[in-house]
Formats: sequence, C-alpha cells, structure tokens
Amino acid sequence: VRKPTVKGVDNAAKSIASILPPTPLFDVEINGVTVFAKAESLQPIGAFKIRGAWHRLSSLSKEERESGVVAFSSGNHAQGVAWAAKRLGIAATIVMPDDAPIAKIQGTQALGAEILFCDRMTESREVIAAALAAERGATLVPSFDDAWVVEGQGSVGIEALDQLAARGLPSPDMVVVCCGGGGLSAGLALACPAARIIIVEPEGWDDMTRSLAEGVIMPVIDNPPHTACDALQTKRVAPLTFDILKARSATGVAVSEADVEAAMRFAFTQLQLVLEPGGAVALAALLSGKVVPTERTLVILSGGNIDAAQFAAVLTRT
Amino acid sequence: VRKPTVKGVDNAAKSIASILPPTPLFDVEINGVTVFAKAESLQPIGAFKIRGAWHRLSSLSKEERESGVVAFSSGNHAQGVAWAAKRLGIAATIVMPDDAPIAKIQGTQALGAEILFCDRMTESREVIAAALAAERGATLVPSFDDAWVVEGQGSVGIEALDQLAARGLPSPDMVVVCCGGGGLSAGLALACPAARIIIVEPEGWDDMTRSLAEGVIMPVIDNPPHTACDALQTKRVAPLTFDILKARSATGVAVSEADVEAAMRFAFTQLQLVLEPGGAVALAALLSGKVVPTERTLVILSGGNIDAAQFAAVLTRT
Repeated sequence: VRKPTVKGVDNAAKSIASILPPTPLFDVEINGVTVFAKAESLQPIGAFKIRGAWHRLSSLSKEERESGVVAFSSGNHAQGVAWAAKRLGIAATIVMPDDAPIAKIQGTQALGAEILFCDRMTESREVIAAALAAERGATLVPSFDDAWVVEGQGSVGIEALDQLAARGLPSPDMVVVCCGGGGLSAGLALACPAARIIIVEPEGWDDMTRSLAEGVIMPVIDNPPHTACDALQTKRVAPLTFDILKARSATGVAVSEADVEAAMRFAFTQLQLVLEPGGAVALAALLSGKVVPTERTLVILSGGNIDAAQFAAVLTRT
Repeated sequence: VRKPTVKGVDNAAKSIASILPPTPLFDVEINGVTVFAKAESLQPIGAFKIRGAWHRLSSLSKEERESGVVAFSSGNHAQGVAWAAKRLGIAATIVMPDDAPIAKIQGTQALGAEILFCDRMTESREVIAAALAAERGATLVPSFDDAWVVEGQGSVGIEALDQLAARGLPSPDMVVVCCGGGGLSAGLALACPAARIIIVEPEGWDDMTRSLAEGVIMPVIDNPPHTACDALQTKRVAPLTFDILKARSATGVAVSEADVEAAMRFAFTQLQLVLEPGGAVALAALLSGKVVPTERTLVILSGGNIDAAQFAAVLTRT
C-alpha cells in the first residue's frame, strides 16, 4: 500500500491550485487571541473533500478513468468525488447512508453521480462499495484510507502556509482540525511539520483521540450517542492516517453537541458563514476553551453542507 | 462639492488592498449561465461599507481625525465607520434607527463607537447627525453622499476586475448591484466603464429606478410597503450618485420580498453564505429572471448582517 508523502502533498497542492482558487483565511479573535480560520466551507462543493477527490481522480490512468469510480460517503466526500468525476468525464457511483442530509444527497445528484443508499447502522457502506467496484472493474475511492486522498486534503495546509507567508506571517505552530477517519488531519500533519496537531471529534465518537492516547487503533464505543456531526461518524480509523498522526504526537479532544451549536452560531454572527456541525467542531474546541490557541493557530472550518431546517433550529436555540 | 473620480476609485482600491484581503469571487451558475459573485458579506464587518468608510476616514487630516467623526446609518455603514475609526484611533459617534437589527447594533458597539438612537419614521437621522457634527466640530461621514465614500465603494469593482484578469477572463459587461443611496452602484459605474450598470431595489423602495427612468431624482413613494431590506431604505438619493448613474445610462429593477428570501436560501444552500435581505437583492434579480445575465456578469453580494431569528425564519419559509 502506498503511503502519503510530503512530496505528494506538495504535488496535490500544485494540481489543486491550478483548478481552484484558495479558500479565504480569516482572522478570528477568540478570547483576545487572533487565530487563522481557513474557510473550506466555501469550496465549490461546500467542503474540503473536493481536494482529496480531485487528487485521487486526476491521478487515475486513462484506462482506470474509463472504468469509472465508486465511493462511499455520508455526503461531502460524495460531492467531492462527483465534482471531480464530472470535470474529468468519469462515471461515478456513490454509496450513501439513507439518513444523509438532503442537501448532501441533492448536491451529489446535481453533479451527475449515481447514488445507492444503504442503512447506516445495519449495512456496511465499505463492503457494499468494495463489492460494487470489484463487480464493475471500477476504482474504489475511499474517503480517507488512501494515499492520494490524504495528500489531497493536506493541500489545504500548503495553501494556508502560502497565504500566511504572503502576509509576512510565520507558519502555524498549532493546527486544530476535525477528525472523522483522519484524512484531513493526517494530510495537515504532513503539510505543517512545525505545528502541533490537535484533532477534534464529537463526544462519544472520539475514537481517534482515544487511539492516539493509547497508541493503538481503537474503534468507536458500542452504541455511541447521537451526534449532529454526520460527517464525523467513522467507526474505526485506518493505520494509514493513524500512523501519521501518532508519529507526529498528535492529541485529540472531544466537544459536546452544545459546543458545536455555539460554534455554528458564532460563525453565523461573526463570520457570515454557514457551517455544518462536523465543519464547526474545530472552532468549537477553541471557543469552548477545550483547546487554548497560541498566537499562530490555524483552525479549519471544514464544511458547510446542512439542511435549512436543521440550521434554522440551531440558530433559534440560543 | 468634490465629485468622485475614476482616479479616486483607483486610489481607494490601492489603499484598501493594503489593509484588507480581496473578498472571494465565486462562480455561480444561474439558469445555465455562470455569473461572478463578489462576496462582500465576507468583509470583516460583514458588508462592503468598510471600503467607503476606510477611504473617507483615512483621507482625513490629523486635525480632522482629532475632532472625531459622526455618521448616520441603519447598521452596515455604522460598522464600517466604527471599524475604520478604531483602526485609525478616531472617536466615532453613530446615529442609528432604533429598529436597526440587533446584530448591527452589537457589531457597532463591539467596535467601540458611541451610538445614538432615533426613530426611523419620525426623526431625521441626517439632521440629527449633522447637528451633532456641527456642535462637536466633528466630520460628518455620510453613507453615500460623499466623494470619498463613493470612491471607496467603487474599489470593489477594481478588485473584481483584477480577480477576473488573474484568471484570464475579460472585464464584466454587466454589473448587477443593490441600491440604497447609490454609493456602491455609482462607485462601480466609475470602476467598470465597459459594463452596463443595473441597480436593484426592493419593491416600493425603487426610487433610484424611477429616478433613472424619469431623468430626475424622485423620492420614495409615500407610505412605502414594509421591506426586510433595512440597508436599502433610503428615502431620496443624492445628485452625487444619481448623476454618475444617469451619465452611464444605468437602469433599475425592483424585486419582491419573496424574490429576496429565495435568493437568501439559494446563497445558503449553494454557496454556504449568510446574506442579509439587502445584501441579496442583486442575486434575487438574477434568480427571479428579472435581470437576464450575460456571460460576463458581475453580481455583488453586498452584506450578511442579519439577526439569527430572522435568518431562521427565512430558511423555514421554503
């Protein structure tokens, strides 16, 4: 299995810079400290997942492209793969849980991908997608357990470093980032070698946090609590991402649903940004005081795909 | 009275580029046509008004700065003046209507400005502010009837042209922009000499549209209908802005409250952006079909300061 490399992240950053403008890097004051917030929610698909999907699909051979791709995703990776596939003329089939946000399902459909639904709790998306890929001779595009995907997600770090450098600012010494399977955080660990990496998960879904603390991969607890962070409900991380984070001595924290909602309201009021719950966890860790920022902290606002009714409910629960 | 000039807009653009990063220019597909949407809602104060306020205040002499500034505003100009005043160390007093959105009042207060409230319908903000400025020897900073303010707002056009040029794209041949007093639209008319200028107002508040059609300034009708566009409730435009738009043969359209709400929901779903009603009118004109875009259309998403309860209500009225 090929492992993600720093060189691969650099290559991904160059490839992505040629097709997508940099997302904005906002100055956000949190308890008197200014942190740098990278608004990946403003990508064309509303999430950072466009990066890894583009790097993976654009690296496929002509023959592989002709056989199509299959992916499994709760929605953001689905839209990333659908976007890249449309742009490259590749047929894409996505296996999605049937309780995925309508916004994510519609976004994926609008990009021309075929969607197959499965039950989140009883069926394994991974197994269904793998079987489908094998049956069709298509390439499986995992959402995090893939060298190209990790490298692609890491390009956000290169982009942020470039934006800080253009302003005469030093590289971050702390990166605060959400974690589902660890693709984004592992990519950032490669992109930002001078930074302490802090991953953030929803309470009860903090398997990467516990895995990093124990030094071995541990799955999510049985019967985990409900979380609004549909994008972060990964049951078990992969050695590919875990090993990178472990080698960098990354640590994790868990945030509550109330922390996440407060962060979503903060982004609405202070930044005029729509964030989905999973896209707000890193900001929530800072706002709640669970992570104390340095003067050189980079935080990723990773996604903003959320149904209108759900967002309205969060806004009114002040 | 000094009139705004193209040279002044260029100077404003240079000055503003030295303190504020460019706001994103998004590709937005509307009925099969890609238009370029400039997200001024992502300015630090959540609206384009930071531009004119900065250009006006940074152009004051040392003596003028020491005597402070006074402004009248429903909220976005207030925050722009407060932001620039704080950065330049100038004392700022703002006269605001007592029904201004709480988000705008709090934003202005957080920037350290003194606020005086007045009744929107019975008291004249302009008269109160002018009297206060005279009494204190302070400089009055009008929200649109001022050469520096118009030039500052026009800098958004220079910035958009630069962003399009960097992508190898031609200058816009159509600019669609909201209109309250006409500061932003007149500035854009100076910045984008090759473009047809289309201003957009809420129904019943379309005084600039009627003025341009008649060739003379006409006030808002008596007892205008309620509009959610608090930022666009100017009762009468000024010769300073009107003459520029008239000379460029600008025309206007009016959008309904339903058009505006649909545009706000579109921005939420498709762009992950929070827009206030007045900030969404130009987009509403395109989405509703009241303005048919060319292949080179620039639309300004001018502001995103709105109370949570109001935004939630718009999201749930699908």
